Amino acid sequence: MNNITYINNKFVKHSNAKISVEDRGFLFADSIYELIGVFNKEIIDTDQHLNRLDLSLKKVKIKYRFNKEKFKKIITKLIKLNNIFNGYIYIQITRGVAERKHEFPKKYKPTTIIFTKHLNIDKKIYEKGVKIITIPDLRWLRRDIKTTSLLPNVLSKQLAIEKNAFESWLIDNGNITEGSVSNAWIIKSSNTIITHPANNKILKGVTRDTVIKILKKNNFNIKERSFNLIEAKNAKEAFLTSSTLSVLPVVKIDNYNVSNGKPGDITKKIMYLYNNYIVKNKNSLAKELKIAWLNQ
Amino acid sequence: MNNITYINNKFVKHSNAKISVEDRGFLFADSIYELIGVFNKEIIDTDQHLNRLDLSLKKVKIKYRFNKEKFKKIITKLIKLNNIFNGYIYIQITRGVAERKHEFPKKYKPTTIIFTKHLNIDKKIYEKGVKIITIPDLRWLRRDIKTTSLLPNVLSKQLAIEKNAFESWLIDNGNITEGSVSNAWIIKSSNTIITHPANNKILKGVTRDTVIKILKKNNFNIKERSFNLIEAKNAKEAFLTSSTLSVLPVVKIDNYNVSNGKPGDITKKIMYLYNNYIVKNKNSLAKELKIAWLNQ
Repeated sequence: MNNITYINNKFVKHSNAKISVEDRGFLFADSIYELIGVFNKEIIDTDQHLNRLDLSLKKVKIKYRFNKEKFKKIITKLIKLNNIFNGYIYIQITRGVAERKHEFPKKYKPTTIIFTKHLNIDKKIYEKGVKIITIPDLRWLRRDIKTTSLLPNVLSKQLAIEKNAFESWLIDNGNITEGSVSNAWIIKSSNTIITHPANNKILKGVTRDTVIKILKKNNFNIKERSFNLIEAKNAKEAFLTSSTLSVLPVVKIDNYNVSNGKPGDITKKIMYLYNNYIVKNKNSLAKELKIAWLNQ
Repeated sequence: MNNITYINNKFVKHSNAKISVEDRGFLFADSIYELIGVFNKEIIDTDQHLNRLDLSLKKVKIKYRFNKEKFKKIITKLIKLNNIFNGYIYIQITRGVAERKHEFPKKYKPTTIIFTKHLNIDKKIYEKGVKIITIPDLRWLRRDIKTTSLLPNVLSKQLAIEKNAFESWLIDNGNITEGSVSNAWIIKSSNTIITHPANNKILKGVTRDTVIKILKKNNFNIKERSFNLIEAKNAKEAFLTSSTLSVLPVVKIDNYNVSNGKPGDITKKIMYLYNNYIVKNKNSLAKELKIAWLNQ
């Protein structure tokens, strides 16, 4: 099967996609990225992801001739070449190759990498919900930037796996900020849906934003505000969102069951609405989805 | 001129030293490093650096058959092959190549890179001293680990350059922790020498530790404790340390002159002592040093 990767204006075999050991992405994590979900051959929220990519470039001051249409063409080509049905597109841009010095090089050519991956997420996690653990949020204070300085996220996600959980929710100053790879949401007994406000403490997830829009459109009561661990453990329901995971029910926080240890009804409704969002404008065949059970 | 780099048991031309775009060092900064100074063909504090490398591997749980003697042989070979007189050895170890997922791969082969660089630091900065600026310390809370998750350091160092300064000193909760690429030191009017204690808030610099040992041996009054910006600006003298910079006088903190804007006498003495340390056991020729003016 084809696996073609884009690297600096060339399409190469993925196994030949290599970068210099002096690429600043490798030496310093001086680099930003995006990951865009592909469901049923459809690329989800492309514009939002590419806009955030452009914003990340500006936030870390990587000088880049950003051309959204060019990115779209490359992405579409890769999806086709690599025959991606369900999966994702990964884009990474670094400050290029230069003699190792922390400060920006005077002149540089950014490195651009785009690859695709097939992904088949186990449907059971949507039916059963997942367990999360809570741990301290040790990350830096510009979490709004989508950089590859991800070691804290790696270590947090790994801790979850070691505790037989799916994800870690991170606690900063008593409040849950977000997950190691996802945004965190709770639903209060009043049916108010709560997620952390988009400031420097979290990454403003594209799926998070889409879900907020969907919820508002459907007259849910949604509040972007901080919430603490006690509120989370006493929540009526909980879920998480990410570009690859969509909307995923959380049924256990540390050792506390949420909504009796089963996906809650409001969460299911949100999954259904998000599901409809990503299959909108599709023909009936396209309804065969990764979370198809929801449409049954 | 030769430029040979070690990559996973092979010695290759530096320009051919490449890594996969799916190396976890590139995707996640899931990787640790060391940088060892070479002065006058002599490798400084090799054991201390390699011991810290081993400690970093353990802290981020990279499974690695660490063999200090093997590293020493490779390093010595590279210094000879590449004819390094003044410069440094750079070592980076990543959690290897694996399909992109935050959690550790079940099985992996770590990537090991070792390259060398020539370095000729402008002697004037030692004669004149340098200016530093102070900015908030936004880094994560495991700064004791020498990882390549370095974007915050990159941005901090860059800010200094943009302000016509040499380095940024970082302020966390009112206290100066360290510089973006170096450890920070002040000398009080009582002649007490102060540097931040080695905890999770700073990287325990090898040169820092060596200087502490030298100072203790020479009966200086040295205290490892936090100090704030007001103390720093009112300090009698100030300096910074790093493996490539050795001991470097600081003569201006933001807009405040320290020791009348010239390297202070105690700082000069410390530079002299450190200088002697790195040239100990050398023949007279070897005394021709990067900071040779100190010996005049």
